[in-house]
Amino acid sequence: MKEYCFGVDIGGTTVKMGLFKTDGTLLKKWEIRTRSEEKGKYILKDVAFSMNEALREMGIDIEQVEGAGIGVPGPTRGDGYVEVCVNLGWADCNPAAQLSSLTGIPVKAGNDANVAALGEMWKGGGEGYRDVVLLTLGTGVGGGIIQEGQILAGHRGLGGELGHITVNPEEPAVCNCGNHGCLEQYASARGVVRVANKILSGSNAPSRLRSIGDFTAKDVFDAAKEGDTQALEAVEILGRYLGQVISATAFTVDPDVFVIGGGVSKAGSILTDVITKHYHRFTSLSEKKVPVVLAKLGNDAGIYGAAKMALN
Amino acid sequence: MKEYCFGVDIGGTTVKMGLFKTDGTLLKKWEIRTRSEEKGKYILKDVAFSMNEALREMGIDIEQVEGAGIGVPGPTRGDGYVEVCVNLGWADCNPAAQLSSLTGIPVKAGNDANVAALGEMWKGGGEGYRDVVLLTLGTGVGGGIIQEGQILAGHRGLGGELGHITVNPEEPAVCNCGNHGCLEQYASARGVVRVANKILSGSNAPSRLRSIGDFTAKDVFDAAKEGDTQALEAVEILGRYLGQVISATAFTVDPDVFVIGGGVSKAGSILTDVITKHYHRFTSLSEKKVPVVLAKLGNDAGIYGAAKMALN
Repeated sequence: MKEYCFGVDIGGTTVKMGLFKTDGTLLKKWEIRTRSEEKGKYILKDVAFSMNEALREMGIDIEQVEGAGIGVPGPTRGDGYVEVCVNLGWADCNPAAQLSSLTGIPVKAGNDANVAALGEMWKGGGEGYRDVVLLTLGTGVGGGIIQEGQILAGHRGLGGELGHITVNPEEPAVCNCGNHGCLEQYASARGVVRVANKILSGSNAPSRLRSIGDFTAKDVFDAAKEGDTQALEAVEILGRYLGQVISATAFTVDPDVFVIGGGVSKAGSILTDVITKHYHRFTSLSEKKVPVVLAKLGNDAGIYGAAKMALN
Repeated sequence: MKEYCFGVDIGGTTVKMGLFKTDGTLLKKWEIRTRSEEKGKYILKDVAFSMNEALREMGIDIEQVEGAGIGVPGPTRGDGYVEVCVNLGWADCNPAAQLSSLTGIPVKAGNDANVAALGEMWKGGGEGYRDVVLLTLGTGVGGGIIQEGQILAGHRGLGGELGHITVNPEEPAVCNCGNHGCLEQYASARGVVRVANKILSGSNAPSRLRSIGDFTAKDVFDAAKEGDTQALEAVEILGRYLGQVISATAFTVDPDVFVIGGGVSKAGSILTDVITKHYHRFTSLSEKKVPVVLAKLGNDAGIYGAAKMALN
């Protein structure tokens, strides 16, 4: 094993980059703009250029670099193949092979949500575990599954897309995906606000949320922490549906820990407590009841996971 | 690759054994009794003895055997370790390592449901695919998940235990596992009969099932095929809950085919049709809609899968 590796997390507007020691120490992190024009043909060239710049700046020779990993914001197969990535304009390509030929070092690629799960396993909330499921509660709900230290990519590179599991077929509201009753409709930042608004409009019960114009998911959790019954009801609904999906996932892939990340996870232990309560309710077999913990790496999970991928 | 391999499927009363060519041709299959007395200490010795007998009978030298696989009726970790197997009396052991030292050939072990899934991938309903989910609808509901041609064992060797996913928390009846509303309560042979009886007792609508004393799951499907509305309702309920779990599994592990086995699967296309209808209803993303097909190997899935394990 050589001394250094790169983690590259490609998003629609910026590319997050990290230079690591192979023991997981982050030496330097920075961002460059994602040039998605002309079908994203400059993105990997910019990444390769920026990697070389960083090496020169740090006085590191490319011969000392073990490899690099890339997180791609779209389906990415186990062999690195990307059929289509709408955000970047890519189609029918293998960015890992391309970046490898641009830099001369081995490169692997994975879907960004799966890569983030690998990051949390390596140096985040899942550290010390080998079978990890990450749920990211942000604008939407994403997920990633790690089995025996490796990303479960799935046939089309879409493993771990837990946000669109149907949890309530009777839901009248439509999800972004066109279905009704996806987990994302209850457990994303928008979902929490939607559910809280529905609860408030269904009664005249007092709630501090009524005095806030456009309240956020954070407002809902803050109110719940102060005992606001309407906010607590929204939190229970989120916990119920997350518990249901986590229980089903435990029966399916049998992990040893669930890690909860994304903006909503800043709510802290109130979130993991309510999820755990409902998860246990739906789970008969005691060996399926594993810890539910908070993510630790925030927006850096992607670069950590990408760097770890280079070492696998 | 050598020319021959063994597949061994250990059950509570009999051990099914198969001698295969490594191209998957079954040369000979037979059964021996499972001696579970004295904590099952004779089981692997009997297996080793019987393997040697078969080789002698067929005029094959042990040097021509690539290896053997074992299906174990309990949780089996990826490294072959068995913490406890109640049916056989085993605890804290590694049957793969033990059989290997008894026979002198490499041996691998896996949970029997997962091993059956590998068999269906190799030479059954999932032939030609690499990412397969098997659901076995028998007395209970079992499952197995294959990812990139390998068993997804899970942290405790309990991956793919799809029968105890909660699909209806409002169910008043209790499952064998102690929970309420497990898939098994609707989609096992017993479950189909239970649901049909509940429908019949809820109305006076005519049904040919009323004239059969203790009807079976097969009777329910036969009646449904003849247009019996009460039987059709039970089949719809089974399809709805199987569709729900299959959709969730598609979002979780992203397979390229679902294979339906077990005694209930003898119902044929009426079963795969009703499952597919509901699976698609719960699945927004078109790339998650993969074929649902019938298993082909019946009770031989275990020996096929065990033999394939020896080649992985």
